[in-house]
Amino acid sequence: MTQIVAPTHPFDAAVELVAAESPGVFRGHTSPAYANMVGPFGGITAATLLRAVQRHPERLGDPLSLTVNFAGPIADGEFEITARPTRTNRSTQHWNLELTQDGVVTTTATAVFGTRRETWSSTELAAPAAPAFDEVATQPFPDFIAWARNYDLRFVEGPVPAPEDGAQPDSTSTLWVRDNPPRPLDFPALTSLCDVFYPRAFLRLGRFVPAGTVSLTVYFHADATMLAAQADDAVLGTARAQRFGKGYFDQSGEIWGRDGALLATTHQLVYFKD
Amino acid sequence: MTQIVAPTHPFDAAVELVAAESPGVFRGHTSPAYANMVGPFGGITAATLLRAVQRHPERLGDPLSLTVNFAGPIADGEFEITARPTRTNRSTQHWNLELTQDGVVTTTATAVFGTRRETWSSTELAAPAAPAFDEVATQPFPDFIAWARNYDLRFVEGPVPAPEDGAQPDSTSTLWVRDNPPRPLDFPALTSLCDVFYPRAFLRLGRFVPAGTVSLTVYFHADATMLAAQADDAVLGTARAQRFGKGYFDQSGEIWGRDGALLATTHQLVYFKD
Repeated sequence: MTQIVAPTHPFDAAVELVAAESPGVFRGHTSPAYANMVGPFGGITAATLLRAVQRHPERLGDPLSLTVNFAGPIADGEFEITARPTRTNRSTQHWNLELTQDGVVTTTATAVFGTRRETWSSTELAAPAAPAFDEVATQPFPDFIAWARNYDLRFVEGPVPAPEDGAQPDSTSTLWVRDNPPRPLDFPALTSLCDVFYPRAFLRLGRFVPAGTVSLTVYFHADATMLAAQADDAVLGTARAQRFGKGYFDQSGEIWGRDGALLATTHQLVYFKD
Repeated sequence: MTQIVAPTHPFDAAVELVAAESPGVFRGHTSPAYANMVGPFGGITAATLLRAVQRHPERLGDPLSLTVNFAGPIADGEFEITARPTRTNRSTQHWNLELTQDGVVTTTATAVFGTRRETWSSTELAAPAAPAFDEVATQPFPDFIAWARNYDLRFVEGPVPAPEDGAQPDSTSTLWVRDNPPRPLDFPALTSLCDVFYPRAFLRLGRFVPAGTVSLTVYFHADATMLAAQADDAVLGTARAQRFGKGYFDQSGEIWGRDGALLATTHQLVYFKD
């Protein structure tokens, strides 16, 4: 009898955690497939932290919000995540997370999980206009960005600037994006997608500059039902900066899914040099 | 000889902390002047947490970002804040904060502080159009909202809905706001102002519903020099919701100062019932 084993998606391999002896402690390993220029792609780190809460035996419900603070570089190799519920209410639960390497904190996070119930709903924000996914060409990131090879990226506006493009007056990027190979959307994958926007300073300045996310926040609007409806379809992401100055800028973005459903809103503060 | 002592501003009294014996532990007390319908105004809690970092002897630089998670109700009375530096780099420092009452966590937070240096700057966002502060009438909040009496609130659009106003198609509020009595702007006061927007669901639904902030993030664009230039002038705040659904909505806002300077951007996830 031949046993057919589905190959593990690179994303699942990257966010894989092993429970340690102490409750709430998990061990993981950086994945070369999701490497950034220095250390791992921030999105995969955020997704792995969320995964730690999902794996915790005391976890209540699904994610409502997540804030990840990138405190220091993560070296290639093993890491440990400690997930601690700080308060559990009837329908919400608050989490404190730390990612360490050899006892040194590299990343901290807080998360709110909870159960949802039906209420009045309204999406006040409008999705950006964009041609269909199939009508937009794939535009890969520069080859040295390993993590981007795990995404099919199709820019509608604001692609990664080429040297001849020069400075731009507007920092908006809008792109179709899908895991490569396709993979059904879940909360960790949605988290990772929230960091898929390259630093907005590149676009405004028309060149690559040293830049890195300091703090990333995700508000989850999708529940499990919305994620299931999305399946492995591409999502439409859009992001723009609000202010650049004195070494930092902030960017805000949204991830839109099937039928114009707003799956997540996301914000980050980014360090940059010019 | 008569000694003249300036009366303490209610804001300073509200965010006052006393250092406990253990390093990084501070004791405070809720202030009736900043009470909300249940417990204290979220802005004053956020400001008090920021104040704890400012008071910590190991603090480096000024705030860059702050995320506060409102985990449970804060009872009137004493509380304790523990501020712990999780990582200190050359120019940034990461903080973990917990506010407890009788050992029970009511509020958690993370903050990033740091030093800034001159870089290219650009404010991509446009300030909302508004007549001058002096040309807009003061519109107090309903009388039972104690904290709002410490602010001179002058709505340009989206005032607190009256019963006859009904549901609105747009959740934007824009208002001039100044501490009452006026007080020079500092980082805690700017933090508190980021929560001055009443829940956007009130405006869309045209009625008051149970609502409370779950998680609040502030990105500080102002440094100490920009705050000093602002002095005790009114700031222009604006906020709007992005999506309402299944018991939660998110709102984003900005605080604009003198000469169109963007002082802070802020986002929050809010629980609501309809």
